[in-house]
Amino acid sequence: VTETPRIAIDAMGGDVGVSRMLDGATLALASDPNLKFLLVGDQAAIDAALASHPAVRGAADVLHAPEVISGTDKPSQAIRRAKTTSMGLAIDAVKQGNADAALSAGNTGALMAMSKLALRTLPGIDRPALAALLPTLGDNDVVMLDLGANTECDANNLVEFAVMGAAYARAAMGLERPRVRLLNIGEEELKGTGEVKEAGGLLRDSPYLPLQFDGNIEADRIGRGEADVIVSDGFTGNIALKSVEGTARFITDLLRRAFTSSLRSKAGFVLSRPAFHMLKTHLDPNNHNGAVFLGLNGIVVKSHGGADAGGVANAVGVAAKLVRASIAKRIADDLARFHEHHPIPAAAK
Amino acid sequence: VTETPRIAIDAMGGDVGVSRMLDGATLALASDPNLKFLLVGDQAAIDAALASHPAVRGAADVLHAPEVISGTDKPSQAIRRAKTTSMGLAIDAVKQGNADAALSAGNTGALMAMSKLALRTLPGIDRPALAALLPTLGDNDVVMLDLGANTECDANNLVEFAVMGAAYARAAMGLERPRVRLLNIGEEELKGTGEVKEAGGLLRDSPYLPLQFDGNIEADRIGRGEADVIVSDGFTGNIALKSVEGTARFITDLLRRAFTSSLRSKAGFVLSRPAFHMLKTHLDPNNHNGAVFLGLNGIVVKSHGGADAGGVANAVGVAAKLVRASIAKRIADDLARFHEHHPIPAAAK
Repeated sequence: VTETPRIAIDAMGGDVGVSRMLDGATLALASDPNLKFLLVGDQAAIDAALASHPAVRGAADVLHAPEVISGTDKPSQAIRRAKTTSMGLAIDAVKQGNADAALSAGNTGALMAMSKLALRTLPGIDRPALAALLPTLGDNDVVMLDLGANTECDANNLVEFAVMGAAYARAAMGLERPRVRLLNIGEEELKGTGEVKEAGGLLRDSPYLPLQFDGNIEADRIGRGEADVIVSDGFTGNIALKSVEGTARFITDLLRRAFTSSLRSKAGFVLSRPAFHMLKTHLDPNNHNGAVFLGLNGIVVKSHGGADAGGVANAVGVAAKLVRASIAKRIADDLARFHEHHPIPAAAK
Repeated sequence: VTETPRIAIDAMGGDVGVSRMLDGATLALASDPNLKFLLVGDQAAIDAALASHPAVRGAADVLHAPEVISGTDKPSQAIRRAKTTSMGLAIDAVKQGNADAALSAGNTGALMAMSKLALRTLPGIDRPALAALLPTLGDNDVVMLDLGANTECDANNLVEFAVMGAAYARAAMGLERPRVRLLNIGEEELKGTGEVKEAGGLLRDSPYLPLQFDGNIEADRIGRGEADVIVSDGFTGNIALKSVEGTARFITDLLRRAFTSSLRSKAGFVLSRPAFHMLKTHLDPNNHNGAVFLGLNGIVVKSHGGADAGGVANAVGVAAKLVRASIAKRIADDLARFHEHHPIPAAAK
């Protein structure tokens, strides 16, 4: 177990850039002093920012990268610049063993393509997946994956996602046998696409996996605390996640309109401020920032481009937790157990 | 144009049954006296309920049906009882020309299967789709389809849904060229599944259709008022709709918790009641009750099983509006125009 995770930070990514990433690193260090950073990006810009972030300066090395991946760069363009960009060199540091995890707030498509090419998938894993924690009304968050890495998936991909998501839930929430469900349009076994039905069959037949498969879950139950891991293909998962985010914003906007519609409502708003603060804390995406790219020989975490310092610190915390939990080894071990019973077809090897 | 739509109501469907359906019919008549009803179900139960619903009694005939489709009946079981059940006979009344539309609050899968078998799809339509209106922050609602009738769809199905959804938007909201978008995981043309990309190409090449195709839309923009029609396969549409509904309930539950957490918050709640009432009105699913099964030779509307009287009245209003707008003819005409340019492959005829 790595007691002091070393995290390579793409210092140039995100809507704000270096200062925001260092603000986040400062906050992360304050709550967890056993962290080291490798700050990757423009040396001059990083040095200048470090002057006003003394705590980070004491815990960080700097790796100069002359270029930056932009938000509009295509993944195919990005991978050609793996050795010159801050994002590419942060990932390369994980590959070279100079860091235990990479963190970037930049272009998601580029980050996934570069990570997959540099770090390769774990043995037994066909496709990596993007996973995140979402809030629930229950005691724990829920791990959702895939959130957009794979537009189309077969049944084996979904089983791999279930194994990876369960390993994440064990690592992040200390659960022994996470309750896993497949996202579907009904709870009955006969519902859904052929891929989902086949994946359900495979998971029901795999009681030796360190997870409890509870069948299907409908999208209106995502936040009810009835599952620890919710699995879907990346198209469906992205639609569900964005629908949740969009609806939360829709209602927040409606509330704002409603509470500014009259003097009486405004007074009510002032009186209700603690209640709204509680709601905001629960819904604030910064408190759940840090999506993980699971299934690779290394840890890569994506911070939201617009995350605030607290959000960046949260993503750093996710990376550190996964390093300390040896997430990649855990996934590889669980997958090996699955493939003892379900050998990988020769054609796929 | 049918000035006085005659609506066959499955009087036995829904969580409450006859009394709720007649409460809804009463409300519908109060705001639109030019309606006739055919109440289908147990004659004795309907007669008893009509005694306390005099307005409906003056506008309704009764058709006795000895059996009822239950919530757990499979579609395959239901279609064998088309001639003995309240749901089956309500649909049959449309087929026989004894009603202009059928309305049921019963089992959705059974309703879709029976409707498709009895009414058949319109010429040029491969698959019917389930469509509903959702609230937005803009001036109009948005038509979303397919919400679950078809788990897997090809590009032509999606184009047909676009045409059907646009016809609905023209009929329901009086728009001349509704803005149509495909639900996708990014706005760029290259994003998404093969089916979605191909459908986008077909729609871009069809400027003669009475709609304005605006490309893709992500799920977090559904309620922003940026589209009049949002098209997807039934699996994706169901996931998006349920995610929206579940998140709205999640936040409502959080608000309730927050506002009962202290005396101060409770006082704030009382003061803010008008604002909450405004929010509730906007989010209340009863105000958007009535999903339409589009693409058939006849109009079938599904009311939510738990809808209140106002919700049932809203669904009756949807049915009446679609009858007066001759929705089936409108869709058939638009589809014929599309197939002039894109002939149906011989194999599919």
